[in-house]
Amino acid sequence: MGSGVTFLGGGSFGTALAVMLAKKGIQVKIWDRKKDVINDINVKRENIKYLHGTVIPFGVEAFENMGDAITDSDYIVLSVPSHAIREVCRQAEKFITNNQIIVSIAKGIEEESEKRLSQVIKEELPKNPIVILSGPSHAEEVAQDIPTTVVVTSENMEYAEKVQDLFMTNKFRIYANEDITGVEIGGAVKNIIALAAGVSDGIGYGDNTKAALMTRGMSEIIRIGTKLGGNKETFAGLTGMGDLIVTCTSMHSRNRRAGILIGRGATAMEATEEIGMVVEGIKACKAFYELKEKLKVSMPITDALYKVLFEGKDPKYGVHELMTRDKKYEVY
Amino acid sequence: MGSGVTFLGGGSFGTALAVMLAKKGIQVKIWDRKKDVINDINVKRENIKYLHGTVIPFGVEAFENMGDAITDSDYIVLSVPSHAIREVCRQAEKFITNNQIIVSIAKGIEEESEKRLSQVIKEELPKNPIVILSGPSHAEEVAQDIPTTVVVTSENMEYAEKVQDLFMTNKFRIYANEDITGVEIGGAVKNIIALAAGVSDGIGYGDNTKAALMTRGMSEIIRIGTKLGGNKETFAGLTGMGDLIVTCTSMHSRNRRAGILIGRGATAMEATEEIGMVVEGIKACKAFYELKEKLKVSMPITDALYKVLFEGKDPKYGVHELMTRDKKYEVY
Repeated sequence: MGSGVTFLGGGSFGTALAVMLAKKGIQVKIWDRKKDVINDINVKRENIKYLHGTVIPFGVEAFENMGDAITDSDYIVLSVPSHAIREVCRQAEKFITNNQIIVSIAKGIEEESEKRLSQVIKEELPKNPIVILSGPSHAEEVAQDIPTTVVVTSENMEYAEKVQDLFMTNKFRIYANEDITGVEIGGAVKNIIALAAGVSDGIGYGDNTKAALMTRGMSEIIRIGTKLGGNKETFAGLTGMGDLIVTCTSMHSRNRRAGILIGRGATAMEATEEIGMVVEGIKACKAFYELKEKLKVSMPITDALYKVLFEGKDPKYGVHELMTRDKKYEVY
Repeated sequence: MGSGVTFLGGGSFGTALAVMLAKKGIQVKIWDRKKDVINDINVKRENIKYLHGTVIPFGVEAFENMGDAITDSDYIVLSVPSHAIREVCRQAEKFITNNQIIVSIAKGIEEESEKRLSQVIKEELPKNPIVILSGPSHAEEVAQDIPTTVVVTSENMEYAEKVQDLFMTNKFRIYANEDITGVEIGGAVKNIIALAAGVSDGIGYGDNTKAALMTRGMSEIIRIGTKLGGNKETFAGLTGMGDLIVTCTSMHSRNRRAGILIGRGATAMEATEEIGMVVEGIKACKAFYELKEKLKVSMPITDALYKVLFEGKDPKYGVHELMTRDKKYEVY
């Protein structure tokens, strides 16, 4: 049998990947803070709260004790929201040995420090190899074996390729990309654009409007991403454009759904409560608003969304302003 | 009042633009071959066949006689499908004077010659200024005043800017772009990818699959487009990525809807009959298949779709093949 994998966090994407690996015959352990999630996985064989409707094979076992979950696994997957990454690393640190490969599947940057998640992990677990897995991959579809493609990246591609081999199936294709900065930034910023696309949908605007917003949003991703050191080509790939598309157009996207609620008049907090899970785009909007001010990068969609989310601006007015900016030549 | 505009072809996008211009107070004439379309516009004030549900203002008049429609207008908009462009130009030639500006809103290339539509128009009307208008703009949404952005381009940007001023409203934003090749090729190839995206939807694949297909499709557009002389930046803009997104994700898209039918088992001909209008992606697939063979450009999605459309290959197998190609690094 394959090497063991531990998921720290029993959210939707972590659970979907756990199910996928267990079907490959790999021993999978899930740690979670919530007792009901553990019980649902171990007893009901379903993660009712986060991945309703998917049968969890017996190769997956959930643990309340983090140490028990981590012991003996070759791979430790951090499957918590981006804001919890540092804390979970700190908690895990005393159980983790240097040969365990850390895999991160969250998308975002740390709000206070504006650091990429791989940088946060490296600060907390400096001796472990770190691999990032990202791309257009809604959990609900991965769990149903719907063809999906993602990207792995690492400062040391040898480890990225190990993760590639471990997770690859004929329905879950993994490409490797050496541009860790580009992969992480693309994955984080697209949530801002998806939230804005949802707002446009919520107002009642159309597919033409959203396509324009996504196209201009892509330029925004490229501008901030290259400024931070990412390769332009990466943003045209699965973790940039691909993930932007799926997040802006799928009803599986929490960011988009939160945006729709906000477009209809909900506050950011009301939308988050209604979704019932973390809405990464709201956190990302705040972090990137501050970052782009500091770096003097033009991000008009992030600007407009920030004003809607945190300064009570009418969403309709925000979109109107974006549409009527005086720009006569199409320049990127 | 503004200068007069004649639309040659009363299809959905032409009619939507005609309505928009008439609301601006511009005198609009529509010529069409079909008597029922002319009657519906003039008498019922609705283009029932092609733009059901939109009231046509009295500033729009439809004509059976092409000469009557063309006389006295400053702008002649070619609003017929791409395969009819040359023939309509030939018919119109004897009525057209050299000072009339020709605007083309079709997307495609000429099947036999593999020429861009502006090249075809130039051959038939060599003395007239030619402007191309393209971008993510479903007629149904333009007719409803939903915020939309498009691009104009020309060999002589002075005329593109005239068209920009004429058509611009606060809901229909027009950018200018000097890359006529890029704009025309992007608009033509995206229909192929949209058809393939529809096939994926029709098979029952998910948003993850489609996002992957669109991302790889974007590379295909860039490869053939730059080979033909377009600028890479244009393909990242409204007429490339923007139009690709809207065509692949909207139910307004005939190409996508035809793809869905094909994914469910219909032949190309059956799908076209069911849609009841021209499916540009089918024609574009044939033309670009031949062109990319000649130019030795890799277009695996166009390849796979060609085999499904014209060689009876099972669509499911086509997508499967695309998903399982042996490519371990993400390279564009």
